[in-house]
Amino acid sequence: MTPQHIRLGLFGFGCVGKGLYEVLHQTTGIKADIKKICVKNRNKKRSLDASCFTFDKTDLLNDPEINVIVELIDDADQAFDIVSTALKMGKAVVSANKKMIAEHFEVLFSLQQQYQVPFLYEASVCGSIPIIRNLEEYYDNDLLSSVEGICNGTTNYILTKTALEGKSYAEAVKEAQELGFAESNPRLDVQGFDPKYKLTILLAHTFGIFVKPEQVLNYGIHHMNKHDSNFAREKGLRIKLIAHTSRSGDEVKAYVLPRFIRTDELLYNVNNEYNAALVQAQFSDRQFFVGKGAGSYPTASAVLSDISALQFHYRYEYKKTFQKNRMVFSNDFPLQVYVRFSNEKVLDELQVVNIKQAFGSKTYNYVIGQVNLDRLLAFNPNEREDVFIGII
Amino acid sequence: MTPQHIRLGLFGFGCVGKGLYEVLHQTTGIKADIKKICVKNRNKKRSLDASCFTFDKTDLLNDPEINVIVELIDDADQAFDIVSTALKMGKAVVSANKKMIAEHFEVLFSLQQQYQVPFLYEASVCGSIPIIRNLEEYYDNDLLSSVEGICNGTTNYILTKTALEGKSYAEAVKEAQELGFAESNPRLDVQGFDPKYKLTILLAHTFGIFVKPEQVLNYGIHHMNKHDSNFAREKGLRIKLIAHTSRSGDEVKAYVLPRFIRTDELLYNVNNEYNAALVQAQFSDRQFFVGKGAGSYPTASAVLSDISALQFHYRYEYKKTFQKNRMVFSNDFPLQVYVRFSNEKVLDELQVVNIKQAFGSKTYNYVIGQVNLDRLLAFNPNEREDVFIGII
Repeated sequence: MTPQHIRLGLFGFGCVGKGLYEVLHQTTGIKADIKKICVKNRNKKRSLDASCFTFDKTDLLNDPEINVIVELIDDADQAFDIVSTALKMGKAVVSANKKMIAEHFEVLFSLQQQYQVPFLYEASVCGSIPIIRNLEEYYDNDLLSSVEGICNGTTNYILTKTALEGKSYAEAVKEAQELGFAESNPRLDVQGFDPKYKLTILLAHTFGIFVKPEQVLNYGIHHMNKHDSNFAREKGLRIKLIAHTSRSGDEVKAYVLPRFIRTDELLYNVNNEYNAALVQAQFSDRQFFVGKGAGSYPTASAVLSDISALQFHYRYEYKKTFQKNRMVFSNDFPLQVYVRFSNEKVLDELQVVNIKQAFGSKTYNYVIGQVNLDRLLAFNPNEREDVFIGII
Repeated sequence: MTPQHIRLGLFGFGCVGKGLYEVLHQTTGIKADIKKICVKNRNKKRSLDASCFTFDKTDLLNDPEINVIVELIDDADQAFDIVSTALKMGKAVVSANKKMIAEHFEVLFSLQQQYQVPFLYEASVCGSIPIIRNLEEYYDNDLLSSVEGICNGTTNYILTKTALEGKSYAEAVKEAQELGFAESNPRLDVQGFDPKYKLTILLAHTFGIFVKPEQVLNYGIHHMNKHDSNFAREKGLRIKLIAHTSRSGDEVKAYVLPRFIRTDELLYNVNNEYNAALVQAQFSDRQFFVGKGAGSYPTASAVLSDISALQFHYRYEYKKTFQKNRMVFSNDFPLQVYVRFSNEKVLDELQVVNIKQAFGSKTYNYVIGQVNLDRLLAFNPNEREDVFIGII
């Protein structure tokens, strides 16, 4: 098959956009060039000639020569407007915007079917790891039993610093911000929203179902304290923020929660800004992928792999969504958790049962027991400062 | 794109062939069926009706309805005959036969170009890990700097048992044979021939060069003894059999050698029959893949992914081979190694330089120093019973 020549219209020239520009100019094997770049800020100094840029999105969307739109802007609402318009005009689209995709997933899915155009977004989940492409290889939803991973580089960096260098949570956050990993307001990362958006995308490619982000529990690491870190260290465990989905029969559960990882687990050595994905499938058994989850070049390389696939008219098949034996999403699943608390009433609220361990002192109390996922969702743990919960 | 309906002609109905048959019948998402299976032994009892089988290869090769040949037989020479004939007849081919591919790689490459037919072999390297497909995503040979991994499940199983359960090498080999991992003559595995064939295939998809297997050093684990295991344990290291290729400028080196792995390396926790691949690339940075490297279903799932790709006319592009800035293979590279020996003359023979550590006793002597790869190749370490060498 002769590769299609790609003429790109690029939205956004930040960290990833610049990375893509450089990557495209250093690789000679891909027949693609950027025709125009649409940016927002008229006063910013830029590394390229002014003629490369426009401030009018229609310059890109209405240009019949541009056959692929690459959307790499921050604003999820504007991104959706650009992406949906481009699809309606029959242009293929590549995006890395997990929030936008997670929030508008069903509409974006329908637009691809209606206008018969590809929409690729490998860079939106786990950066450089080709996880979506890999999941697309599994054609039947009952062939997969679980997908889980470390999908957020910022929190993994913070957790690595607290675990390996004995830093406090606050120190580690500050360091991550200074290095540019964490935003000045790191809420989306440390409360687990960012990995949840990614998990929502994985759900569609794993079990063929579209789930609204608000249906899925996301709980982060911002309430972790030194007692929790010490508990992990003493038991030879490491706390990691895990996005998880698995099925029992036709019922699918999903959540983002901290988990205590054992030393013999593959996830144990995934440190700093690295991401990982663990796929359990019927025939290929367990597959494990590790790669950089963020950063200019790793993300740009995932965008590049989508562009290169579009040369050969690749598109996601969403076969699992079209299958008859559809899966049902549910939060009615028990989880074994560690709960650190100051007020015992928390245990009643969470309806902790089957308590296997309990520890109490003046400054530190915890139990290990069983909690139902829907109970945890109702508890809204991100807003409970005196509690830390992790799967164990 | 509408998927092409695949009618398969299958050669071989052993472990992987049976696995493929079952996998194809349990997955509903792939439009493929097996029209006929060609087997060798007329007297073997088989689980399917006799009408499914033939003993005449031309029944498959001359059938115009069969558009894909899947070759899963043991004999490398017969396999080459089948595969090359099928390609010449314009049929797409899927194979898992690393020895056959490594020994006839340039011819098989030329046949694909000449007859414009796809030849896919994801199952030949690292079982269920989609490593070839992933390397094909990197279009330029200078984007990749190294690929290495654990490519042999049998030796990794043996090494895991000696390291984690304190078993002797002989006990571990016996256990692997009883479990069906190792052949009654495990030479191809424990002397590193099997991972070398895989490495030869990786070389073409990493740096675009075809290298004869005999140009590449393969040294296995069959001379490892309890001193070497103890040395590793005391230093907190684990011995793994590593297939490695990397480049310095335009020069490429490759070898299969035991390596002492540190506890913080991702390869450290890859145990038992699992395989792993570590890719270092300019833009995506470090990527790591783990999966089952052998077994009926894991291998069949890789064959299945090739068949599913053929539905959409996928083929390897070999872009790096077609590029002008060709890489050159060389064995003129220094390596830092641990050498355990009984006769000091070995050190002269190997021309060990820059010795950093030396230990001597009545029963156990070793040095850690630098050896050139071509020197090691000339030394022929697989035939030297009183020596063990590993990268450190």
